[in-house]
Amino acid sequence: MVAIRKKQLGRSVSIVGTGMSQFGAYKDKTTRDIFVEAFHDMMQHMDSGIDVQDIEAGYVGNYSSDLFEGQGHTAPIIADWLGMTPTPITRIENACASSGSALREGIMAIASGLYDVVMVGGVEKMTDLPTEGVTDVLASAADGLYEVPAGFTFPGIYGALAKAHMERYETNLDHLLKVGIKNHNNGSLNPKAQFNSTIKSLMDRRVARAEERGHQVPAWKNEMDFLNDEQCNPWIAWPLRLYDCAPITDGAACLLLVASEIAGNFTSKPVEIIGTGQATGRPLHDAEELTSLSATKYAATQAYEMAGLSPDQIDVVEVHDCFTIAEIVASEDLGFFSPGEGPRAADEGRTALDGDRPINTSGGLKAKGHPVGASGVAQVIEVFHQLRGEAGQRQLSSKDLEIGLTHNVGGTGGTCVVNIFRRV
Amino acid sequence: MVAIRKKQLGRSVSIVGTGMSQFGAYKDKTTRDIFVEAFHDMMQHMDSGIDVQDIEAGYVGNYSSDLFEGQGHTAPIIADWLGMTPTPITRIENACASSGSALREGIMAIASGLYDVVMVGGVEKMTDLPTEGVTDVLASAADGLYEVPAGFTFPGIYGALAKAHMERYETNLDHLLKVGIKNHNNGSLNPKAQFNSTIKSLMDRRVARAEERGHQVPAWKNEMDFLNDEQCNPWIAWPLRLYDCAPITDGAACLLLVASEIAGNFTSKPVEIIGTGQATGRPLHDAEELTSLSATKYAATQAYEMAGLSPDQIDVVEVHDCFTIAEIVASEDLGFFSPGEGPRAADEGRTALDGDRPINTSGGLKAKGHPVGASGVAQVIEVFHQLRGEAGQRQLSSKDLEIGLTHNVGGTGGTCVVNIFRRV
Repeated sequence: MVAIRKKQLGRSVSIVGTGMSQFGAYKDKTTRDIFVEAFHDMMQHMDSGIDVQDIEAGYVGNYSSDLFEGQGHTAPIIADWLGMTPTPITRIENACASSGSALREGIMAIASGLYDVVMVGGVEKMTDLPTEGVTDVLASAADGLYEVPAGFTFPGIYGALAKAHMERYETNLDHLLKVGIKNHNNGSLNPKAQFNSTIKSLMDRRVARAEERGHQVPAWKNEMDFLNDEQCNPWIAWPLRLYDCAPITDGAACLLLVASEIAGNFTSKPVEIIGTGQATGRPLHDAEELTSLSATKYAATQAYEMAGLSPDQIDVVEVHDCFTIAEIVASEDLGFFSPGEGPRAADEGRTALDGDRPINTSGGLKAKGHPVGASGVAQVIEVFHQLRGEAGQRQLSSKDLEIGLTHNVGGTGGTCVVNIFRRV
Repeated sequence: MVAIRKKQLGRSVSIVGTGMSQFGAYKDKTTRDIFVEAFHDMMQHMDSGIDVQDIEAGYVGNYSSDLFEGQGHTAPIIADWLGMTPTPITRIENACASSGSALREGIMAIASGLYDVVMVGGVEKMTDLPTEGVTDVLASAADGLYEVPAGFTFPGIYGALAKAHMERYETNLDHLLKVGIKNHNNGSLNPKAQFNSTIKSLMDRRVARAEERGHQVPAWKNEMDFLNDEQCNPWIAWPLRLYDCAPITDGAACLLLVASEIAGNFTSKPVEIIGTGQATGRPLHDAEELTSLSATKYAATQAYEMAGLSPDQIDVVEVHDCFTIAEIVASEDLGFFSPGEGPRAADEGRTALDGDRPINTSGGLKAKGHPVGASGVAQVIEVFHQLRGEAGQRQLSSKDLEIGLTHNVGGTGGTCVVNIFRRV
């Protein structure tokens, strides 16, 4: 009865500006303060001037300022502090995929013909609560009837994925650690990242401190030794350890989207959005398998089809590595590696900056930080900079970077958003 | 630098089906259960059959299942219980305007060309908390830095609006009560309403009970006497009393939107969306005046301009009467009455079912109930039924009803959404 057409946008949409707050812990700031920081960063770095009142609509991805900060109705509060009223603004919530979904709403708002200039951002202020409180707030993104009462938190849920992957594909603990080491290496080159240190430098610092204090100097030969030392890298939820988990982060990120036909008014180097997909997965307790997230596959298929591209044509990739196993699973679900090949690829350095399939050049959620509502947009910012050749020390060397992809997940694939970008 | 065009959608969008749960208190149900009830109601009342998998995307307006129920990431949880996965679904939050904003996202999703068939719903499960807890959760939609610490809750904030209106326009307490009496009259004709009783019947019941029990029979002559009895209608936040306030409600509502070009596949009586506007107001502590909500005026201007209509061309109206004063202010801000004329119009019965400008034929939030995230869509359902001649005992008598308008507010105008509809 209903004819489902090939999904296609009525108007092309491009990104012409980006901004990010420093990612980290801001004990004395609120959600609105942090968002303002990202917004000012964007306005200051626009290639061409724009006034806040030129923006016609705004979207803010935010998981739960309600639970983290006791502030609901966050979007207008932010708009007020940006001086953006009476421009319409709306909060989008899909757990850790909130700003990935917000980006889609921004895209559709322009493609609909209603607006030409739209701000899309994301923000989370997480560090007001103690770690256990943050874990509880995040756990509320799982199924409150069937998962949370059984004791599941997200480290536990992703631990279950890791265990299943280990059973099925002989993935081992070292494979997981390699992902974390690589992402810290990348994050060390990202001035906005929460963790600017390689694992090696963290290890060296510990050694130096032991020597300084006349303590016994640890006998670690390399990062793997360091990460296998339970005192340095304690178990969180077997088989995941501290350095398998993205940190708790305060941060905000934002983008300026415009109709592609006017992008030239804002910059000579716009980045066009050429594919977008979003899908919904069943809660993990009802999922058909544990070694793959079905929502990633559905969302990626939509985005690849709209873009008319296949995985091997993607040059720059940011995936949702809330845990190291999540990056491995994503690298397979997105079609970069076949099932079971992901761990080996990480182990062999193929996903490093100088590998044949670099992943998470920004440092990923692991090292850049994971202010959950902001992460989807922050991924897009990395792709934007890489495609424009503005990624500084972590710039991919290939001269013909053209296509980028972001992959943003809420829960364990309850929501997945995939977007594909092209340097114009 | 940026040319702001007249706002116009690239494709026309129509409503072809609606569903609502009973509004009331569901002690034994969760957010997802209540939404399923509304969805099934919609599917059962479609003029033409449709399968859940024909729906291409979903939006759910919800203020805070986080705070009310401890469940975040509500949208995919709902999709799972609807059997809708892997269809993308997204939660939209703008306080009590959440589902008004969700409707706009649904409109833009279709107008963008990405989808042809989209579900838009709203839901709130509020009664798990005690009344004080609900008041606190709702207060978190006000400014947490400058309003909540000063002791403001929403009855207090709207009380301030009422006081200002009384000072400026000689509005009095009886004018407010008249709005509540009228909305209870309308609600008594709405089988889905939380309060199916007129104030008169509530009064008569009390009298009968007193007679039955041999107590002294109250000397009320009419509803005004009853509502001026402090024992029946206690003060909540002066000048607002119990019957000036919308109740705490559990409920859900949903709509099926389609591209107008295929609406005929679903029904012979689609209702087209011909105007939409949304605006953001500054928090009340920074508002320029207290007798008007600027966001209503901005949103209404956008919607009227897009529709090419003026207020006098609107036949059916649902406005956001979270408090009686809110209906009066809305009736002025939307251009139905001049500033200060609203109270007199209510007093003279002009806004009643048989008046020249009927408002809130459904019973409004006051009598139909106010499950905050659902209210925006529930308003649209009333307009849909009135325009199609399906509003039962409360059907407006005019034979040529053609145009309807809904007005949905978050906070005290932090967000306002206005949509305009036409019977095709």
